[in-house]
Amino acid sequence: MKRALFAETMGTALLLMAVVGSGIMGEQLADGNAGLALLANAVSTGAMLYGLITVLRPISGGHFNPAVTLCFWLRKEIPGLAALLYGLAQVAGGLLGVWATHLMFGLAVLQQSTTARTGGGQWFSEALATAGLLLMIHGGRRHQPGAVPALVALYITSAYWFSSSTSFANPAVTIARGMTDTFSGILPTHVPLFVAVQLLSAAVATPLLGWLFSSGE
Amino acid sequence: MKRALFAETMGTALLLMAVVGSGIMGEQLADGNAGLALLANAVSTGAMLYGLITVLRPISGGHFNPAVTLCFWLRKEIPGLAALLYGLAQVAGGLLGVWATHLMFGLAVLQQSTTARTGGGQWFSEALATAGLLLMIHGGRRHQPGAVPALVALYITSAYWFSSSTSFANPAVTIARGMTDTFSGILPTHVPLFVAVQLLSAAVATPLLGWLFSSGE
Amino acid sequence: MKRALFAETMGTALLLMAVVGSGIMGEQLADGNAGLALLANAVSTGAMLYGLITVLRPISGGHFNPAVTLCFWLRKEIPGLAALLYGLAQVAGGLLGVWATHLMFGLAVLQQSTTARTGGGQWFSEALATAGLLLMIHGGRRHQPGAVPALVALYITSAYWFSSSTSFANPAVTIARGMTDTFSGILPTHVPLFVAVQLLSAAVATPLLGWLFSSGE
Amino acid sequence: MKRALFAETMGTALLLMAVVGSGIMGEQLADGNAGLALLANAVSTGAMLYGLITVLRPISGGHFNPAVTLCFWLRKEIPGLAALLYGLAQVAGGLLGVWATHLMFGLAVLQQSTTARTGGGQWFSEALATAGLLLMIHGGRRHQPGAVPALVALYITSAYWFSSSTSFANPAVTIARGMTDTFSGILPTHVPLFVAVQLLSAAVATPLLGWLFSSGE
Repeated sequence: MKRALFAETMGTALLLMAVVGSGIMGEQLADGNAGLALLANAVSTGAMLYGLITVLRPISGGHFNPAVTLCFWLRKEIPGLAALLYGLAQVAGGLLGVWATHLMFGLAVLQQSTTARTGGGQWFSEALATAGLLLMIHGGRRHQPGAVPALVALYITSAYWFSSSTSFANPAVTIARGMTDTFSGILPTHVPLFVAVQLLSAAVATPLLGWLFSSGE
Repeated sequence: MKRALFAETMGTALLLMAVVGSGIMGEQLADGNAGLALLANAVSTGAMLYGLITVLRPISGGHFNPAVTLCFWLRKEIPGLAALLYGLAQVAGGLLGVWATHLMFGLAVLQQSTTARTGGGQWFSEALATAGLLLMIHGGRRHQPGAVPALVALYITSAYWFSSSTSFANPAVTIARGMTDTFSGILPTHVPLFVAVQLLSAAVATPLLGWLFSSGE
Repeated sequence: MKRALFAETMGTALLLMAVVGSGIMGEQLADGNAGLALLANAVSTGAMLYGLITVLRPISGGHFNPAVTLCFWLRKEIPGLAALLYGLAQVAGGLLGVWATHLMFGLAVLQQSTTARTGGGQWFSEALATAGLLLMIHGGRRHQPGAVPALVALYITSAYWFSSSTSFANPAVTIARGMTDTFSGILPTHVPLFVAVQLLSAAVATPLLGWLFSSGE
Repeated sequence: MKRALFAETMGTALLLMAVVGSGIMGEQLADGNAGLALLANAVSTGAMLYGLITVLRPISGGHFNPAVTLCFWLRKEIPGLAALLYGLAQVAGGLLGVWATHLMFGLAVLQQSTTARTGGGQWFSEALATAGLLLMIHGGRRHQPGAVPALVALYITSAYWFSSSTSFANPAVTIARGMTDTFSGILPTHVPLFVAVQLLSAAVATPLLGWLFSSGE
């Protein structure tokens, strides 16, 4: 369990470094072209996810995401206490990742985002993005377990672009991104509704995916 | 069958979300640089296709495309009635995907495209693009079935760029894209000829590919 | 043999469609930003190569490149007459691909490039690029045959950017690109030296790679 | 051993061609847009790494990086003398790669960079980037050896963007990049501290990763 929690913490930290760091670099280099910054964001995050899930899944399951952990708990694949500890490790890892990124780029460590991300469209976007992520994880585990790292990586790369919210789809990531006033940030007061929608979507999608990927007819 | 039709509907809906959503996001962020928007479009669509085909192929075959279903029917791999139901599910899914995308981005749900896409060059382009797609599917199934998701994903990513029509190559996608007045739209009156060329190309390519990938000499 | 020659012709035609078509599209959309056009070029060509080699290798070996065929002939893996016919099929396919691309984009079918590509730096670049390509093919076949399509695809994607000549590395492609006055063209009078350097590089690299990947010590 | 040292030399040379060459091409074409140049850099380097590691790993282990060789030596997987020769081969290969790239682009062969890369943020960035690279290599070898080429390739593609130093993470690469006054260069006087941080990070990360990926509880 110690190694599993370490893996979830470190993995989520590295995930946030990819998300926030590539956003800062993109913003600095792309000279005002937000499209290029988002492309860097999408490629960097997807590539990192492939690696993290491949090497850490054998240790902790490679969740790095409380919505995924919730889904595993609802399916009785992880006990309640472990799920809770996973969630805490993920949130702590996310914050560490953001702060490490600020250190790398010589920015103030403690920040709060000023980027508004709210409204019905964005909440609907987060609900769809989270459900889609669980579709990939659930379907991959059912039909082709070895493909899960690539499935998650490519899905998130795609979702950065097709969702109006750029697909946070992860409560730990959302909370951590509240703490950076850079390209990928989200106003802290807008965090709770994003998180609620993500968890709700996971709760609704889990039984539906259970039916879709069940063995019987 | 219920699950298969659900998979075709949902898969085509997610495919259209990737196509239309990434087009809108690209247009908004790329600041008038249509090249960057098309790159986002190509990457997002390809990455989504990899996931959809990987997780849903065991349930429905993962067509999401009436031209592909036609090809399977011509090869007697799917009965006529099922093929028809697949086609309806794909078109319905495509429309749902476009409307969901409009909701995400806070746009009017019901729209009609005003983007002209017509003329001999574009029809020839659709014919080649559709035949090329079937080459990848047919050849992959014959020689390396596990590679089909990557084959389709990478082919479509490539075809966005090399075809003058940006490679619709899918009647359900074409119909649905008539209903969005955003980057990826097509004037509804130009839809029928695109669809006709796609289906005709599939009908011509299927026996040719049957010969190319036959076992004998 | 009939199917093999058909596969080499069609495969080289599709390869040229990817190269020339994505160049035209990139030039049209990227609004003068040649970097974005080259990125589209690199991604589209690489993605197409992955597909072509995967599905057609079981039929013809998936060369689509006289320098590769030369290498196979030097290694006595293909008889001289077949190698010659392969070369002709590849050159014919390349021309068909360029002309089909011009038709798709509504351009004059018969063109000649006006883009100078010459000089010691570019010839050295072609020599290195061709040898590198053979390193990937030879090494892949020796150690991990299933990876050859990805090896060639990713190598060419990389080589577009690191070589000063954008890595033609293929006599059939070079000849065909002489016949298009678009982004990817090469002045016909500059074609012969590119081709000579590519073939010479293949002839020199083949025995060296034979040593590197031999089984003994 | 002769072939192994040849493979390390040639592999590191090709790696530097990808890094430096794509940087030059990016700078020339992207018209002042450093974001696009870095994207080309990241894609070209990652794609090349996939190939080099796939085809040369069976011969030399495919290190191309003294920090990786140090890690193998600390784990007693390579003897001290061989590790030393590997390091020399890698540095020599890196220099050859840079000079070959200058020849390709018609630039002066011998150059020195004038790009400052220094300061606490960048050193911290190099420490994290190097440790992350070893995480991927170590974890991949432990849990999915066949995925190591893709793991390294995608990690480096990601790290170009998320680290403030653009992730050199390789002493041979760092030394060689001191010798080019182009996009990817680093002021020679700033090389020693980058190299020191990389080697220190490898020395610290190796036992930690040994614990994380150990079999026991």
